[in-house]
This record gives sequence, C-alpha cells and structure tokens, in this order.
Amino acid sequence: MSDGLVVALSGGVGGAKLALGLSRALPARDLLVIANTGDDFEHLGLSISPDIDTLMYALAGVDNPATGWGRRDETWSFMDSIAALGGADWFRLGDRDLATHVERTRRLRAGETLSQVTADFCRRLGIGPRLLPMSDDRVRTRVQSDGGWIDFQDYFVRQQCRPVVRKLAFDGAAAARPQPEVLAALRGGGLRAIVICPSNPFISIEPILAVPGLRDAIAQSGVPVVAVSPIIGGRAVKGPTAKMMQELGLEASAAGVARHYGDLLSVYVAEPDDAASLAGLRLKVVAAPTLMTSLADREALARVVLDAADARRRAA
Amino acid sequence: MSDGLVVALSGGVGGAKLALGLSRALPARDLLVIANTGDDFEHLGLSISPDIDTLMYALAGVDNPATGWGRRDETWSFMDSIAALGGADWFRLGDRDLATHVERTRRLRAGETLSQVTADFCRRLGIGPRLLPMSDDRVRTRVQSDGGWIDFQDYFVRQQCRPVVRKLAFDGAAAARPQPEVLAALRGGGLRAIVICPSNPFISIEPILAVPGLRDAIAQSGVPVVAVSPIIGGRAVKGPTAKMMQELGLEASAAGVARHYGDLLSVYVAEPDDAASLAGLRLKVVAAPTLMTSLADREALARVVLDAADARRRAA
Repeated sequence: MSDGLVVALSGGVGGAKLALGLSRALPARDLLVIANTGDDFEHLGLSISPDIDTLMYALAGVDNPATGWGRRDETWSFMDSIAALGGADWFRLGDRDLATHVERTRRLRAGETLSQVTADFCRRLGIGPRLLPMSDDRVRTRVQSDGGWIDFQDYFVRQQCRPVVRKLAFDGAAAARPQPEVLAALRGGGLRAIVICPSNPFISIEPILAVPGLRDAIAQSGVPVVAVSPIIGGRAVKGPTAKMMQELGLEASAAGVARHYGDLLSVYVAEPDDAASLAGLRLKVVAAPTLMTSLADREALARVVLDAADARRRAA
Repeated sequence: MSDGLVVALSGGVGGAKLALGLSRALPARDLLVIANTGDDFEHLGLSISPDIDTLMYALAGVDNPATGWGRRDETWSFMDSIAALGGADWFRLGDRDLATHVERTRRLRAGETLSQVTADFCRRLGIGPRLLPMSDDRVRTRVQSDGGWIDFQDYFVRQQCRPVVRKLAFDGAAAARPQPEVLAALRGGGLRAIVICPSNPFISIEPILAVPGLRDAIAQSGVPVVAVSPIIGGRAVKGPTAKMMQELGLEASAAGVARHYGDLLSVYVAEPDDAASLAGLRLKVVAAPTLMTSLADREALARVVLDAADARRRAA
C-alpha cells in the first residue's frame, strides 16, 4: 500500500540532506529525486555532475560529512600528482570520487544517457529511491558578472563566489527535453507531493524549472508543492544564496525566497524565528527547525514536510 | 664537451633499469631513450602508455621499487571504488599514476602529440635526458593464441601471459611514421652508440624496429649496437620472455635472443655463466653481471655497456 509518490527537486549539499531525510521517511518506491544538472561541467576531459554525485553519495551513506560534498574516507593522491604534471587542480577531485567521473565519462562516450548511468550507479551503491537528472540534454548555468559571462564552476569553485552576480542564464535549457520518467511522474496519477529542497533557488532549482515542461507540470500537478527555506535569519546555511539575492536586488530572507517561487508554492516550511516575517504572504507557512545537523534532523524535517503536504491536501 | 649521443631502445621494467643506469653514467644531453608504444592502450576512456610511464617514473625517481611499474607512495582508492560502480578493475591504476593518464588523455584530445605530452611531463618531473615514443602514430601489439587474436594488455595483464603465443603482430606499425627527433638522432652525426635494453625482444623491442625506417637507421648508423641479454641462465628476470620464446619455437636462452637480433648487433652483454654458450655466435660478447638489483648495479651495467661500445668503436 503506497501513500503516493513524492517528487523532490534538489541541488547539492542542503538539498541532499533533505533528500536523505525523505528517503528515511518513505518507502523507496515512493520517492523520486530530480537533480539539477546546470552545475555539470567537463573538467580534465571528465564529465562531472556535482549535484547528482552529492545526492548519490548522501543517499548511499558514503558522503563526506565534513565537507558536504565528495566521498568519506577519501584520499587525495590524484590531486597531489596532477598539479606536478601541469594539470588543473582548482576543482578538488578525490581519488574515490574520481572513479565516478571516469566511469561515467566512459559510459557517456559509449552512448549511455546520464539517466542510465545514474540509475546503474545508484543500483550498484544500494540506493532504493529513484534519482534522475532533470534532463539528459546538456544544460549549463552561466553567470554574468561585471567582467562578463563565466561558467558556473569558474564562479562557484575557482573564484569561490567572489564575482558579483548580475544575471544568470541556463545555456541549452530552452532546447533541453525533460527526463521522460521525471515528466511522467509529475503528470501521472499517484502523486502525493512535490518538494522543493532547501537548495539555492537561483542556481539549483531554477535550472530544473527552466527545462521546458517541468515548471508547468509542477504547477498543474494538483498536489501540494512544499518548499523548505534555504535561508535562516537572513543567512544561507551554506553557499552563496544570501549574497546572490542581494546582488540580484532581492531581499535576502526566507520571505524573499518564497516571493521568488511565487504561485508555484502552496506550503512553505521556514525556521520559527522567520515565520513572523512570512505572515503577509499568500501561502501556508509551517514553522519548524530547518537546520539539519544530525541524521535525526534530516528525517524529522522530512516528516514535517510530508505532514504539511498531507494537511494541505486534506484542507484543499 | 660531449662524447656523443647514446640512443637506448627500451620497453618497461628491465629496460627502465638500464635506462636509469645510463642516465646516471651520461650527461643528460647525451642520452635519448626511445620507448615502445606497442603496449599502449585505451582503458576506461584513458590513453595509457605503460612503457613510457615506467621509464618516466624510473628516470624521475618516483617509481615503485616493489612492483617495478607504477609510482611509489601509491594509494588505491580509485581502484577500490571503480569496481563498485561496475568499472573494469583488471588493470591496476594507482591514484597518483591516474593523474598521468587523465592529463595525457586530456592533452591528446586537445591535439598535442604523445611526444609533446611526454616531453612536457618529463620536464615537469625534472628528467634531464630525452624520452620519446618510437612514433606518435598508433601501433598496437596483438597476440595470436589458440583462441585467436587478442589485444596485448588482455594477454599480458588480464590473462597474465597464460595464453600460448603463436604469433605477434604490430597493428598500425607499417603505416606509422617514426618520431622525427628519433629518426634524426639515429641518422645524424654525433652518435656514440645504440643500446638495446634488456627488454623482451618480441613485445618491447620488435615494435620499435617495426616502425618503418627505424631498423634501417639503426643498421646503417655506423656506431656499435650493444644489446644486454634479458635472459639469465635460460630464465627471464621478469615477464614472459622465456615462455614466449619456447612457444615461438626459439631457444629460450641468451644465445636465442642474440640470434633473434642477428646482424643488427655488434656487441652482446650477457651474464658470465651464459658467456660460454655464446662462443659460436659471430659477435663480440662481453660477460658482466646483468641482474640489476641496486641503483649501483644499474649504473655499473650502464658503464659496462658504454665501455663495450667504445672499445668496439676503437677496434673497428
């Protein structure tokens, strides 16, 4: 007996925490995680999908709890050696993590889709829920700063988010086809809720919504769309969300994120201290602790999200 | 003041030991090492050049003394992880070693030649003498066994030399162009000697000689061609040389190797115990310890080789 499918939209670190919580609160068949691939890039000749990998490692329990990205029990011999040969070393690739990139690159070149590779990796790593890219087509987030347009990982990792963000673009998104299973899940029956994980709205969630068909399918799904605020007390838990909002002329707050999502949302889960500032918004607000430090925190927040969705559904 | 250029033909482990000895006995500008690339292959999407790498690591002093191949202070996290993702793990790639393959593959795809990549890696690793592939074109050693033709690394590593060798072929050799600097060195003035390192004659040296122009250039060089026997007392120091000779219907002995090289050789350096069996051959035989255990052994054998070449030259 299933309560229906929960579809979660997620970027990397923060999103992966809630995705792991959902995977503990739901039977495996009832969760589908859609990963942002706008962060994907080619580096050292390898196809790297940072958000897919962060989600995969988190769901498999092989993630690095200290960094939030990469694998636990990691070694760095490759990195130590590549610089001595003149290779680029600004993007840190651990030795275990590298196996993912090398094997994925080999399979993509051999003609497999990113979905197929991801599904097979997940199966081999013992991951129950489905994890799929938003699209098997190439979408690349680009950042316009005062010096012009740069690639996302150049901005995010090499320049450590220092450039001021004037504009974002998702190259390839307009022509990208949504991953077929993802679209079928959003359009099909048996949906229970759609969850927007506490990821950066602009660089993690927006690329997913920019794939033709996905935003409409979510808006027309008829099930509650629940977002968790990535902002607590005006600050992002991790990453450049707050800085980026200021640079884009938005209010760097939980309310600012909710206004950005607009009509797409039906329920918004935010930190109790931020709840008062959300009173003026026309959506259901649920106040709950959103900082996920422990595994128990992740699962507890997932249950808050599911309960909020179910309550909304019953009220509708 | 230079005594002239020494050109050494080499495969992997055994050859690299003598190449290192020569690099210690000669000024850097007086040594050019030609590496076999018939062992090269594509694996996990990476371009791997085992003999170039063994030579490079040996000359840079970063080789693994326990295995004879790969790098010292190596870690194996990549290998531990690749199998779990369904990747091939029969060819052992250490984490440090992997940096060489990833960066080389990236550069070859960007249009650099194998010679350019190798020269740059050597410069960065602080290697003085020149190390060059026999050709920048693709040559692939293939092995005919009772089950048909197989790729060399399938025979050598995956099946650990178990298949009976009926025939060898060097795919691409007939159309390969000799590396230009190599050909110029063999044809130019200022040559002192040509050294055939104690590598497997059939799978390490023969591919080099199969590149059009190289065998002739060596035969017509006018300088002593000195080979060191890879066989001691009927046994190969390492690898399948003796087994392969028996399977090919040849006498697995120091004399069998000398007969295989035939007129190309002017001097042959062999273990004292093997010298008597070489008395009937029409070439100058020098008896000397050829087992290179220590660094001093490598340098001492290099000096024996150089002295033998110079003595032969004076006698001519």
